[in-house]
Amino acid sequence: MYTYDYLLEFTHTVFIKMGCSKEDALNTSKVFLAAELRGLSSHGMLRIKDYYQLWKSNRINTDPNIRIVHETPSTAVVDGDGAIGMVAATKSMEIAIEKSEKCGSGWVSTRGSNHFGIAGYYAMMALEREMIGITMTNANPLVAPTYSISRLLGTNPIAVAIPSDKQPPFVADFSTTPIARGKLAVAEKKGEKTLFGYVQDKEGKRSNEPSILKEGGSMLTLGGDYEHGSHKGYCLSAIVDIFSAVLSGANFGPYVPPSVAYLPVLDKKVGEGTGHFFGAMRIDAFQPAETFKAKMDQWIETFREAKSAPGMPAVKIPGDLERENEEIIRNKGIQIIPAVAEELKEIASELGMEFEVRE
Amino acid sequence: MYTYDYLLEFTHTVFIKMGCSKEDALNTSKVFLAAELRGLSSHGMLRIKDYYQLWKSNRINTDPNIRIVHETPSTAVVDGDGAIGMVAATKSMEIAIEKSEKCGSGWVSTRGSNHFGIAGYYAMMALEREMIGITMTNANPLVAPTYSISRLLGTNPIAVAIPSDKQPPFVADFSTTPIARGKLAVAEKKGEKTLFGYVQDKEGKRSNEPSILKEGGSMLTLGGDYEHGSHKGYCLSAIVDIFSAVLSGANFGPYVPPSVAYLPVLDKKVGEGTGHFFGAMRIDAFQPAETFKAKMDQWIETFREAKSAPGMPAVKIPGDLERENEEIIRNKGIQIIPAVAEELKEIASELGMEFEVRE
Repeated sequence: MYTYDYLLEFTHTVFIKMGCSKEDALNTSKVFLAAELRGLSSHGMLRIKDYYQLWKSNRINTDPNIRIVHETPSTAVVDGDGAIGMVAATKSMEIAIEKSEKCGSGWVSTRGSNHFGIAGYYAMMALEREMIGITMTNANPLVAPTYSISRLLGTNPIAVAIPSDKQPPFVADFSTTPIARGKLAVAEKKGEKTLFGYVQDKEGKRSNEPSILKEGGSMLTLGGDYEHGSHKGYCLSAIVDIFSAVLSGANFGPYVPPSVAYLPVLDKKVGEGTGHFFGAMRIDAFQPAETFKAKMDQWIETFREAKSAPGMPAVKIPGDLERENEEIIRNKGIQIIPAVAEELKEIASELGMEFEVRE
Repeated sequence: MYTYDYLLEFTHTVFIKMGCSKEDALNTSKVFLAAELRGLSSHGMLRIKDYYQLWKSNRINTDPNIRIVHETPSTAVVDGDGAIGMVAATKSMEIAIEKSEKCGSGWVSTRGSNHFGIAGYYAMMALEREMIGITMTNANPLVAPTYSISRLLGTNPIAVAIPSDKQPPFVADFSTTPIARGKLAVAEKKGEKTLFGYVQDKEGKRSNEPSILKEGGSMLTLGGDYEHGSHKGYCLSAIVDIFSAVLSGANFGPYVPPSVAYLPVLDKKVGEGTGHFFGAMRIDAFQPAETFKAKMDQWIETFREAKSAPGMPAVKIPGDLERENEEIIRNKGIQIIPAVAEELKEIASELGMEFEVRE
């Protein structure tokens, strides 16, 4: 078990050693640690090796010149200059929040970025400013549109955070596929089959084999098949891709660069790096803030009172699960699987620092 | 078969007789006819009777004072004053477009409205202004959140229209349930079972019986069950409800008023009428318009080239199907099922006008 502070300090130092400014390294570390606390370890310390290896391959820029390349009072395009996703994303969301402060809402599309961790982190940045936060990002192509066997889309997540008063905030953060990529990886590592409805083989036949992605298979969009609305998941994923990459001038669809160094840089580029989209809307741009927050409490309480089906748990409000995880993990400590701890130790050694492998 | 012009003229006159201004009646009629042309007859002439009966029951206001009650440079709340949904929605989208013209983007949340027909119509209003259009609306509660048997959400659709250059525009318009309510109604009228994954019975057991909604059953959210991501459909539907109703001060969740006169007005109100949400973003608030449109063409062409699974049709771009319907129906004419034609004849007679029942 590790404390939050130990891992934050370690991660902070790793990114400083990789050439980040103290501030950029801290912002990056906070996103990795937020993933651990929220129970999303697939986006936590596990990923540091990927970032480190991309840096060693000169595929991420730890001293970027992140700048606004085009703007209006309520919108901007940000060029991330090849930055670590967390660095470009934190800066972009700050710009969206600043614009929202001035004219009610702010919308930023970002190019030249990389994998940015959990989408919900940036959406939640809006909460303390009494704003609704919205985040989207495109991602490595693994997902086929309805009817197709071509991998043209990523798991393209959407996150929306909405302030409330006495109730905890509403925080939705979800991929536009039936399950996240990380869950397939876990099943594969355990040698388990999955349910049907997540992946198809290279000919579009249904499959319950998570390793099928290595044999030309693809993930399905939310809905699973056409009869159950997979075209709606495809629409959502496409909207995320277009807002993140066509609006910004990033690579879209099948051209999104890999977020791991063991996959080669793609031959064809249609833009710069990975793309994200950020939104912030001041709640008092619509209602007096107190009115909105009281009404949001009422919305949440209405849904908390929903009747569960027999044998089913209580209805959750989006964000409940991650917040419950955070309460437990903050108390109990953060567990890191041995293989990941060994990787971190190796990185530490290469960078001339220490990482303690613990049970 | 009917021509577009015959039905537009008829519908226009019906709404004028109901007390609408010429302009409001025309805007309303255009949305009904757009639904017919796009092959979405469940939102077309079939619904006129519902509107007519709501008007007879004094449940819609055909002479509303629609006004902005709160605004910032990029946002507004519109009070529809009990208007026909099409009237409040057209006005609200015009305000979003005007704000976008001035400061890059415009966002309007509308209360005190009613059923507004097809969401895609308003999103598409942005296209001719070289803007991305976004529309959402809440709707009668028929849908249960994940784990629940309580009907707390509507089929809450999302529409997004994105301009392109040589390619036709991208127009996504979809409910946040596996299938639309109208498709269940069709199966029920034909006495057919549906596939599993659309509805559950009053105890939350899976069902393939479309009439189960009359026996305390409920529709499921996109994803179907938790294992296949129904919580993501629930998140989406909740976001639509909150943006449409909590931001505006409309009724949310289970308190959305019925859109048919044969269901009574609800005892409890938590706001005014039905709520909608509208967005417009100028494409040149992000990229030079020509650059964006050329890139959007490239996006569309990339997806058109996707390989289909054996036996499957070509991959569609969102909006293709409705546009193909429109080409066929504009040429061939609009078919109205006999029962609906008889209803329209009856309404015409009550209003002192004519409606010709045709094959």
